[in-house]
Amino acid sequence: MASHTGAGRPLRLGLIGSGRIGAVHAASLAAHPGVDFAWVADPFIESARGLAAMYGATATESVEQVLEDRSVDGVILCSPTPTHVDLILAAAERDVAVLCEKPVDLDLERARSCQRAVAGAARPIMIGFNRRFDPSFAAVRRRVDAGEIGRLEQLAITCRDPEPAPEAYIRTSGGIFRDMTIHDFDMARFFLPDIVQVSAHGSNLFNGYIRDAGDYDSAVVVLIGAGGEQVTITNSRHSAYGYDQRLEAFGAGGMLSAENFRPTSVRSYSSAGTEQADAYEPFFLERYAAAYRAELEHFLRCIREDESATPGIGDGVAALELAEAAAHSAVTGRTVAVGGAAAVGPAAATRATESRG
Amino acid sequence: MASHTGAGRPLRLGLIGSGRIGAVHAASLAAHPGVDFAWVADPFIESARGLAAMYGATATESVEQVLEDRSVDGVILCSPTPTHVDLILAAAERDVAVLCEKPVDLDLERARSCQRAVAGAARPIMIGFNRRFDPSFAAVRRRVDAGEIGRLEQLAITCRDPEPAPEAYIRTSGGIFRDMTIHDFDMARFFLPDIVQVSAHGSNLFNGYIRDAGDYDSAVVVLIGAGGEQVTITNSRHSAYGYDQRLEAFGAGGMLSAENFRPTSVRSYSSAGTEQADAYEPFFLERYAAAYRAELEHFLRCIREDESATPGIGDGVAALELAEAAAHSAVTGRTVAVGGAAAVGPAAATRATESRG
Amino acid sequence: MASHTGAGRPLRLGLIGSGRIGAVHAASLAAHPGVDFAWVADPFIESARGLAAMYGATATESVEQVLEDRSVDGVILCSPTPTHVDLILAAAERDVAVLCEKPVDLDLERARSCQRAVAGAARPIMIGFNRRFDPSFAAVRRRVDAGEIGRLEQLAITCRDPEPAPEAYIRTSGGIFRDMTIHDFDMARFFLPDIVQVSAHGSNLFNGYIRDAGDYDSAVVVLIGAGGEQVTITNSRHSAYGYDQRLEAFGAGGMLSAENFRPTSVRSYSSAGTEQADAYEPFFLERYAAAYRAELEHFLRCIREDESATPGIGDGVAALELAEAAAHSAVTGRTVAVGGAAAVGPAAATRATESRG
Amino acid sequence: MASHTGAGRPLRLGLIGSGRIGAVHAASLAAHPGVDFAWVADPFIESARGLAAMYGATATESVEQVLEDRSVDGVILCSPTPTHVDLILAAAERDVAVLCEKPVDLDLERARSCQRAVAGAARPIMIGFNRRFDPSFAAVRRRVDAGEIGRLEQLAITCRDPEPAPEAYIRTSGGIFRDMTIHDFDMARFFLPDIVQVSAHGSNLFNGYIRDAGDYDSAVVVLIGAGGEQVTITNSRHSAYGYDQRLEAFGAGGMLSAENFRPTSVRSYSSAGTEQADAYEPFFLERYAAAYRAELEHFLRCIREDESATPGIGDGVAALELAEAAAHSAVTGRTVAVGGAAAVGPAAATRATESRG
Repeated sequence: MASHTGAGRPLRLGLIGSGRIGAVHAASLAAHPGVDFAWVADPFIESARGLAAMYGATATESVEQVLEDRSVDGVILCSPTPTHVDLILAAAERDVAVLCEKPVDLDLERARSCQRAVAGAARPIMIGFNRRFDPSFAAVRRRVDAGEIGRLEQLAITCRDPEPAPEAYIRTSGGIFRDMTIHDFDMARFFLPDIVQVSAHGSNLFNGYIRDAGDYDSAVVVLIGAGGEQVTITNSRHSAYGYDQRLEAFGAGGMLSAENFRPTSVRSYSSAGTEQADAYEPFFLERYAAAYRAELEHFLRCIREDESATPGIGDGVAALELAEAAAHSAVTGRTVAVGGAAAVGPAAATRATESRG
Repeated sequence: MASHTGAGRPLRLGLIGSGRIGAVHAASLAAHPGVDFAWVADPFIESARGLAAMYGATATESVEQVLEDRSVDGVILCSPTPTHVDLILAAAERDVAVLCEKPVDLDLERARSCQRAVAGAARPIMIGFNRRFDPSFAAVRRRVDAGEIGRLEQLAITCRDPEPAPEAYIRTSGGIFRDMTIHDFDMARFFLPDIVQVSAHGSNLFNGYIRDAGDYDSAVVVLIGAGGEQVTITNSRHSAYGYDQRLEAFGAGGMLSAENFRPTSVRSYSSAGTEQADAYEPFFLERYAAAYRAELEHFLRCIREDESATPGIGDGVAALELAEAAAHSAVTGRTVAVGGAAAVGPAAATRATESRG
Repeated sequence: MASHTGAGRPLRLGLIGSGRIGAVHAASLAAHPGVDFAWVADPFIESARGLAAMYGATATESVEQVLEDRSVDGVILCSPTPTHVDLILAAAERDVAVLCEKPVDLDLERARSCQRAVAGAARPIMIGFNRRFDPSFAAVRRRVDAGEIGRLEQLAITCRDPEPAPEAYIRTSGGIFRDMTIHDFDMARFFLPDIVQVSAHGSNLFNGYIRDAGDYDSAVVVLIGAGGEQVTITNSRHSAYGYDQRLEAFGAGGMLSAENFRPTSVRSYSSAGTEQADAYEPFFLERYAAAYRAELEHFLRCIREDESATPGIGDGVAALELAEAAAHSAVTGRTVAVGGAAAVGPAAATRATESRG
Repeated sequence: MASHTGAGRPLRLGLIGSGRIGAVHAASLAAHPGVDFAWVADPFIESARGLAAMYGATATESVEQVLEDRSVDGVILCSPTPTHVDLILAAAERDVAVLCEKPVDLDLERARSCQRAVAGAARPIMIGFNRRFDPSFAAVRRRVDAGEIGRLEQLAITCRDPEPAPEAYIRTSGGIFRDMTIHDFDMARFFLPDIVQVSAHGSNLFNGYIRDAGDYDSAVVVLIGAGGEQVTITNSRHSAYGYDQRLEAFGAGGMLSAENFRPTSVRSYSSAGTEQADAYEPFFLERYAAAYRAELEHFLRCIREDESATPGIGDGVAALELAEAAAHSAVTGRTVAVGGAAAVGPAAATRATESRG
């Protein structure tokens, strides 16, 4: 591990995993003046070599080689979900900082045990809930915190993917709540960290292989905060008009919304209609480009300042708890109590719930 | 009762009830060239006299007098909810057409028994779910029916009142689901007549006397259609920025939304921000002015053409069933099956439900 | 002429001319509780009879008959432009109030002489520049007056008709500046009463019979206010996306705009684009419905309160002066000085002008 | 000069001038994988050194040293305007490609003579009219070219700076038409290359030192295209709500607009108003960030493909001609004929003009 880093020295980072999201982080690492982009590790060595060559890093098949490089300050984990826990543990052991893509693990107990194991880690461990760093969502949170709408009462999150992930991906995804809604659970917790009830609904409305995999293509989730706040999450695995990523925060003083992003600011007017804007940004690479950059910036700052990172592994576990509760609720038709719900007073206990550890 | 009316002769109508909503109908009746606005009946005779004088109608304390006037074609019931059923029955018996403000009754069984009693009524009986006649909501329905977004998959309804009704009103309102959400239940059924599941959540977030009355000031309801379609309804008893009345219909082909209404088309741009529009129309009189006119037009046409009216008393009962199910669900934390849910196949049976007659 | 009218007695009004714009006013007159709609006069007696029958007024071929009815408080002149001056004079002589559709006359000298002749008229004479009463334009004016954007520096007016008026109309219209832009000249004067320079440009871009008539189908006008303020007016005789009627007022403190009106608040989202609104209101009847009602209200109030009306005949003459200057400028390619321009100091005298009486 | 460059080899570029706009280009050069950012030249050597150190380039006081480096493929000229012509000539002589910031020169004759001198230059000479590369403006042009609105009839360009440039800058700027409107002249020519008439208006509405310098703080220009097309340009040296950069293209088939850019997609709703967006991007660095990147991309492609660049020096001269004509028109109050106007037929000759060389 590198010794404490002054603001002047570039931080030396390695990338674990060279797939689609790995490529996003690689570009950010290469473009950042404060980063020495050292390693790309992937058992598919050809893929690692491609990325490494593009940005002047060194490719390797072996994650061990990266973690054993004592000059490495941190790694970004973009490897398959089942590898996350072991790699977090390995990095923590060597005092290497970690930015791990969501989710920590598909198994809640395994994620919790990982959380306990790294509780005293010397270096920051951060979970890649990139949407917290989206300038628009972050601005809404900041303005809510500043009291602009008074106490937050209702939060509506709409997230629709442009089209379903491939069948092979769906089969190992852990289901829509753990794979897709998990970002929305974290976004809900970004505004309301203490969620006490989960009620979820899943439907199969348009896709055959998702249904065959026992998963849903459409989902609606209601979360209740510790103070009785109401959160609605609407998900669909398709969207004809681009990546639909919106949020509305409502309180006594008014409402703040974050709208979708468009590639250009052009609008058209014809006999067919007026004020027509572009289809929205196609998917997360375009929509969350600024969020990925800000996320990396935060990770670097946490390494430099030796701060614990937010969202941390506890946030990863909490989102997974909500996902698991949602999956259960969708099957049983019952509201599921989560977190510290048992201790919640009458104000929030607006309905009976089924308690699950 | 008047004999069949040709298009030429004005229809002779009476108004029962001269309160706030009565005044709205009175203005519409007076302005309509095809209406002979004959009667205003109200036990508060001073109130009846005020309205009647303004528009050249005759005031009376006695509803009987109106119903016994055999030249009267129809009546609009704006009297208190508990009087609705008896007045519907009395009018139907005399072959007088009825446009009755919602709800039919707060008691579902009483409403159902009224529905059965007037099943064979000779003249149209219409329920005042005025929002079906709002030009924007109606346009969305028409475009969905025309296939513009493909099959409807998700429907989001947001309705927020500007401020809570007075305490006295709240106490006899039947609760938020029967009083306020009932409009949204009908709007959901306007798009998806066969709702099979209801899951509701109520919270007390800002108002003391609503809480003291055992009611909620904020509510979220999820409805599932017979085909698994997902409907979310978001309600609040206050809204700082005006009457919030929106709708989004989503399907494979895209989305159609109906936005809020503004008093003017002015926008302002300053260092504080840009594109700022007016606060939205303050309440239903302004927001639904066009809807009330179109509703009256439809009622007149049903009388003239001797057609059965939509929304009819069956729609009033169906909305009440959803309200009752929601009230139950909010307390038990369980999804409640409604309507023909027992017969629903596996596609829609996305979660276990608690069956209630 | 009727004696001074208390607020209680309905005002007795006559309509002169039963064409398209006459029909608009007829509906407003009939719907207004404070109006006794007495006469419809038109040499085309069948047309007068049609309107009169619809609203319970009396039809006549003779304007004299209306003006001689000493119980008539006022008349609305919707007759052809060449009749305006004579009818204004005749009404003024009999102390009948007048609301005269624009323009006063196509001939500036004739309009000025009419203005002088009625300078001491006992009853209000109002010119039908209805757009001043549009709630959105009026709100911008009110907010500018209240100082919201500081001193007004630039004003942009965009007005595009849906399609060219018929050839026969064009031939007698007096040209685009006197017929169409005249509304915009008045709108400019609504914000900046003292215009000192006019510079105009006309083009023939799409219509053959307008060109053959020696008129333009497209026009751009720049006006300079006494303080150097800059006004741009953009006109076209066609618009594929509906009636385009917009305004932007700019100052040190920011900008206020008035946007177009749409029939519904619906927006659509598809792979072809997002946020698509309806085509705008088709033409002035729909777009300015509220303006016509407010204009009538103002006329009634001026009669009741015995106030002089705004916009008055002086405003009609001033707009015509600008139209004449624009027509001249478009031909000569020179900026034309108008109004009190000779007296304007160096601040506003930003360019040489050609002075015309 | 470097020999012809394959796609593989990075292009070796030098930056001449290290001021504000130089810093923008420096960042783009450093971030581009296809660029070897070699030199920063500036007589203020400290400034050159600062930029060079940040990005690993070599600083020099001597432009000669850069141009004599035979491995240099091209230079970006960000030096003061009076140096542009000499540097273009020097670069062209050594077969070094040039991207020169606007304007070519403040003196039209000097710019024309430079244009003639480099007419046969072996390497591309490009003028930095960056707005042509703005994704939104470029999309409007592409869609107009594709016939979406039919023939272009009217074009409205609105450009307002956030606040006046400093007094010292204003004094040597050449006046608002040559300094600020020049971008809009080029934008007009981007859509309508053949402008035949210019009519301009300048006012002093808010700034003392601009007036004292004999310049205007507010300007409106009307351009007429060879086919009679009408262009309006509205400029102000201040804007309270951010950098105002808009465009509307209108034709028989409808309208295409490019709206302003906002830092986030957040909107707020309160009792004060609704749908309020952020103040717009503060100035050109933020607003045109994507345009600068695309401009550089185009320059690199022209070097690689050995193509002549657009906008080229002829476009720089043409914009300057319009600026000069505008300055003249603003003083004389006459429309000025430009370009091939003498040869223009009756369709476009919609008004008399004053012909100037």
